[in-house]
Amino acid sequence: MPNPTAAMLVIGDEILSGRTRDSNLHYIACELTKHGITLAEARVVADDHAEIIAAVQALSAKYDHLFTSGGIGPTHDDITADAIAAAFQTPITHRADAMALMSAHYERQGLPFNEARQRMARIPDGAVLIENPVSIAPGFTLENVHVMAGVPKIFEAMLASVLPTLTGGPPLLSQNLRVLRGEGEIAADFGALAAEFPNLSMGSYPFTQNGAYGTNLVIRGIDPGQVSAAMLRLTELFG
Amino acid sequence: MPNPTAAMLVIGDEILSGRTRDSNLHYIACELTKHGITLAEARVVADDHAEIIAAVQALSAKYDHLFTSGGIGPTHDDITADAIAAAFQTPITHRADAMALMSAHYERQGLPFNEARQRMARIPDGAVLIENPVSIAPGFTLENVHVMAGVPKIFEAMLASVLPTLTGGPPLLSQNLRVLRGEGEIAADFGALAAEFPNLSMGSYPFTQNGAYGTNLVIRGIDPGQVSAAMLRLTELFG
Repeated sequence: MPNPTAAMLVIGDEILSGRTRDSNLHYIACELTKHGITLAEARVVADDHAEIIAAVQALSAKYDHLFTSGGIGPTHDDITADAIAAAFQTPITHRADAMALMSAHYERQGLPFNEARQRMARIPDGAVLIENPVSIAPGFTLENVHVMAGVPKIFEAMLASVLPTLTGGPPLLSQNLRVLRGEGEIAADFGALAAEFPNLSMGSYPFTQNGAYGTNLVIRGIDPGQVSAAMLRLTELFG
Repeated sequence: MPNPTAAMLVIGDEILSGRTRDSNLHYIACELTKHGITLAEARVVADDHAEIIAAVQALSAKYDHLFTSGGIGPTHDDITADAIAAAFQTPITHRADAMALMSAHYERQGLPFNEARQRMARIPDGAVLIENPVSIAPGFTLENVHVMAGVPKIFEAMLASVLPTLTGGPPLLSQNLRVLRGEGEIAADFGALAAEFPNLSMGSYPFTQNGAYGTNLVIRGIDPGQVSAAMLRLTELFG
């Protein structure tokens, strides 16, 4: 059985304007690979209600899981929860358990649990909360969509609580052979090897070192025996 | 007149598996912002013929420009040029001017201009070449799609030769006020200010510093007078 598939949707004007360099995509790519879930696509959209809805509908229908980051804070530009509710035509309300968690948190901090902060307790009906050990305001899972914060520390903590609840396949294995030859020199033999192992993914990534061209040859797959066999052949060819 | 819009399509298994951390998206976001082109969406897809075609067709139809990175090298996993040709139902052939450039380059280097390297001269009919001062093998522009290499140094050089040929609008201006208050405390007033300036985009980005919460309040827009006026109000509110 093939591994479950997933997409990542990064939500936020600040990524598209260049103000902020996203790090959540790379982080989740590594985590999903370890967990045996294939990250098949990623998108970045602006803080735009219609665009978020369209992306959520397309990606949640196409893949087993959709993970989102960004847009669940207390300010006017945080519109993700409403867009997710709209994407699934689900009502969204201030939820009692989220309100209780956050009310206690702000009381401990001596800060008012004002209207803006209460906005973060608005959760689509039927969603399951995702714990936020950093700043309490929760994420949520609705259908197959896991809605998480954009702040990397919080995103990573939320992902750590979601991932163990998801069924993964065998982890994607990756092996690398570094050769001091250009891609154009190894391409024919490497392509022929890739054709012999249709269940593996083989990629070549050029680099330069002290002015010389080299190539990292990467073999990826979930069957350890096939990866080893291909790696042996690769080493015979270029090692 | 609103600024021209653009999308970025990053092509490559290595980004989605976490092997490689993409840097081209952040780079082009900054460059387009300076050039007055609005980056409205970005996607990452795998080295998959059908997926590349679908993304190219969707994004080139929706935005004024589409920029792609990755998949134009000499190896079997470099399938971008063929997918672009297929997306526009255009034939793709070894192009004489690209062959001449590359043949001279490899001759100077004393390397064979073999079949794999000649693959990089395969360009869809009707495309305009994009210069590659780093490793010669060109990118190309077909219709409104600018096809560039994935290696950051080459991507950046290609973008530098494409951007001056594109009409931009006024650059997106951005101003920032850093306040040592949490987002939940400033949300109401900040949201009201944003509502007063519908032509500006305002965002808030929390940070922590020595255990204290703070927020960067960002105002973005293309009209310098409006950005200044909003920034003055922001400073009165929170400065």
